[in-house]
Amino acid sequence: MGIKLYGVAMSTATQRALACLYEKEADFEFVTVDMKSGEHKNELFLKKNPFGQVPAMEDGEITLFESRAISQFVAHTFMAQGTQFIFPQDKKKMSGIAPWMEVESTKFDPIASKLVYECMYKPMFGRGTPDEAVVAQLEEDLCKVLDVYEARLGECAYLSGDDFGLPDLHHLPTINCIMKIDSKKIIEARPNVSKWAATILARPSWTKVLAQN
Amino acid sequence: MGIKLYGVAMSTATQRALACLYEKEADFEFVTVDMKSGEHKNELFLKKNPFGQVPAMEDGEITLFESRAISQFVAHTFMAQGTQFIFPQDKKKMSGIAPWMEVESTKFDPIASKLVYECMYKPMFGRGTPDEAVVAQLEEDLCKVLDVYEARLGECAYLSGDDFGLPDLHHLPTINCIMKIDSKKIIEARPNVSKWAATILARPSWTKVLAQN
Repeated sequence: MGIKLYGVAMSTATQRALACLYEKEADFEFVTVDMKSGEHKNELFLKKNPFGQVPAMEDGEITLFESRAISQFVAHTFMAQGTQFIFPQDKKKMSGIAPWMEVESTKFDPIASKLVYECMYKPMFGRGTPDEAVVAQLEEDLCKVLDVYEARLGECAYLSGDDFGLPDLHHLPTINCIMKIDSKKIIEARPNVSKWAATILARPSWTKVLAQN
Repeated sequence: MGIKLYGVAMSTATQRALACLYEKEADFEFVTVDMKSGEHKNELFLKKNPFGQVPAMEDGEITLFESRAISQFVAHTFMAQGTQFIFPQDKKKMSGIAPWMEVESTKFDPIASKLVYECMYKPMFGRGTPDEAVVAQLEEDLCKVLDVYEARLGECAYLSGDDFGLPDLHHLPTINCIMKIDSKKIIEARPNVSKWAATILARPSWTKVLAQN
């Protein structure tokens, strides 16, 4: 009864959980959820994730959902192997990591995900062309967040501190998308953010995630 | 050098951090930030929170920000006292808690906060009356989240499981606001959610938070 990750390879949330499993060198089975046939909304899957979204994870009797909850669970479960993400005895280090985890999920991602939808998924799914006014506003909002990142990344190599951590990892799927759209200009305009984005996207774990597609 | 919490008593994010400090029976000093004079945007405060928002916390040499990062830090720091929130040896229990912490911050709060702004703060700050169409859409979106809560709270007393936990605590400030506006009807329409809201709002820690105002 090993770990099973249920998801879709092109889903950013699934990619977030996958990246963590690879960083922790965990043995797991990836189970593709057939969203086209509505598998994520059937009774069996809703027991894994009551919101009917990917990913969900099983570890023996344990079931959990939400990509960032999965990554933290994996980081704790495989404490002794792979990249070290949790430092229970080091309050100072953890206090440098914890806020940036919240910043990603409550400040960066809500804006960045909308931007990626507008410029990438909306045309991809035949829902129209990007709304220029919407894109301009989202870019302006995201720049305010990236300005704080630029200062932080002038003090240390990663948002997490001196070492790559979960806050950095959680950015990977959305940063990867942004670098494929015109909005990458707001990353490239900030030298520290630009260097950080290139560094995290070059991690072997991320190459493995992309190879799932 | 004890704990100092910098914030504003009426800020929901500050209230979230305060509630956790009270639950953990922690000794701390509450320092009011004079936002009217822009204290949260001055150089000294930006060193505590680079986003220039409340709350921020100091614990000796440690500085951190983001209310949910503060609550988790406090929960770890005061592991041995007050309400127990962290169970490092109990994977099963933690897997029941972690997803609901993410649900609050990424699914519940982004909608609920906008609803509270529209119906409470917008008129309070003289920015106009609530936009009925906006309110209706937000209520509809929030109902979808609350429907999942209703099912969860039919299985256990708290979102966290059998015991009050951080995911429940994180909801307190916004649930408290919703119960003061017409939208409370969507809470009251769901018996399990309604009972849960009343139970968490009755916690002595929350009474102490409100007494700060």
